[in-house]
Parts: sequence; structure tokens; C-alpha cells
Amino acid sequence: MDCLFCKIIAGDIPSDIVNEDEKLIAFRDINPQAPTHVLIIPRQHIATLNHLDVDDGELIGHMTLSATTLAKEMGIADSGYRLVWNCNREGGQDVFHIHLHLLGGRTMHWPPG
Amino acid sequence: MDCLFCKIIAGDIPSDIVNEDEKLIAFRDINPQAPTHVLIIPRQHIATLNHLDVDDGELIGHMTLSATTLAKEMGIADSGYRLVWNCNREGGQDVFHIHLHLLGGRTMHWPPG
Repeated sequence: MDCLFCKIIAGDIPSDIVNEDEKLIAFRDINPQAPTHVLIIPRQHIATLNHLDVDDGELIGHMTLSATTLAKEMGIADSGYRLVWNCNREGGQDVFHIHLHLLGGRTMHWPPG
Repeated sequence: MDCLFCKIIAGDIPSDIVNEDEKLIAFRDINPQAPTHVLIIPRQHIATLNHLDVDDGELIGHMTLSATTLAKEMGIADSGYRLVWNCNREGGQDVFHIHLHLLGGRTMHWPPG
């Protein structure tokens, strides 16, 4: 599988992991856009949000709640943070394995890109 | 309840609704940041992402999957779109009733605000 994130999950490419469980791993973005910038990815390879089906709701909910828990653990929950999903080219998706961005530690501006 | 979004849900404030079901409503943002800019909100009043508990995973999954379905229906799924959650001040949260932004119809830039 020629997927960067699958290689990170397999341990073939190193990453700065901040959390993991049986469904997901979370690691720091190598090109951070804020003082705290973490990516939450499922262990299951899903190319884009468009590939989700109704059975994936639980996984997406779990990923999102994991991001909020991380925000608390990393001390940015009260000050604030932003969660971002990108889908396809105009959405800014770069790696075609779905990932949720958690950004905080600075004021996030509007519009969101 | 002095909550703008609860008033929209109750029908006390008009909105341009694009989808609704027993758990959520989706309506166009009155200050759009992209050609397509929709807010998906739960009927249940939840102030911020920090107030979610583990039982809310299903709701969050449903909201996210509803956003992806809307993206397909609105013709932006293939070109691409961005989903954004803001939490608290530095995250850019303006209304304290959780809402998921769906933005598309133009290239979304990086960083996401």
C-alpha cells in the first residue's frame, strides 16, 4: 500500500505519536500551522470523506471525541481550538487517507482558509 | 433559552434550511465564506465541543456524515470541501451551540485560518 499514513501506522515511517488506541493514532503534524497541530487518523485506510458509509459514523465520532480529549490533555481546551477535515483538491486534502486536524495554541482566524 | 441556534431550531428566527432530520438541522450561513457554506447543528443544545461526552459520539458521527451527504447533493464532493469545528475563543467559536461548517465551491487555503 503506497499510503504515507498507512506507513506511519505500520511504523515504517517515524512519527511523534501523542495518542493511540485500537481504532486510531494521533501524531504531530510535521508542518505545523499552530503551536499545537495534531493529526488524528484511523488505522483503517479510508481515502476521503466521500468514501465513508453510514457504518463509519461511530469511527468518525470516536475520532472527533478523541480530538477533544487531546485538546484537554494538551491544555488548549479552555483557550480554544479548531478541528478541520479536508476533502479532495479544493478542500486542501494532501494525503488520501482521512485525517482530522486539531489546531490550537494561537488565535485561529476567519475564514478558515 | 437565549441561544441563537435554539431559536432557529424553534423557528423563531428564519433560516435557509437545506436539510433536517430528528437529530439535526442544516442551513446556509448568513455570512458565507465560500460559495457553499452550510452550518450543521444538533437539535440538542450543547455549548461547546468540550461539553461532549462519550455518548455523543454517535451524534457527532451522524452530523459529519450528513455534511458529506450534503456535499454530494450540492455538487461539491468531487471538487472538494472543508469541514470545520470551532471551540471557544481562540478557535473562533461565535455561537455557543456546537455547529459544523461545510465550505466549498472554491479552493480552500492553508493554514485553515
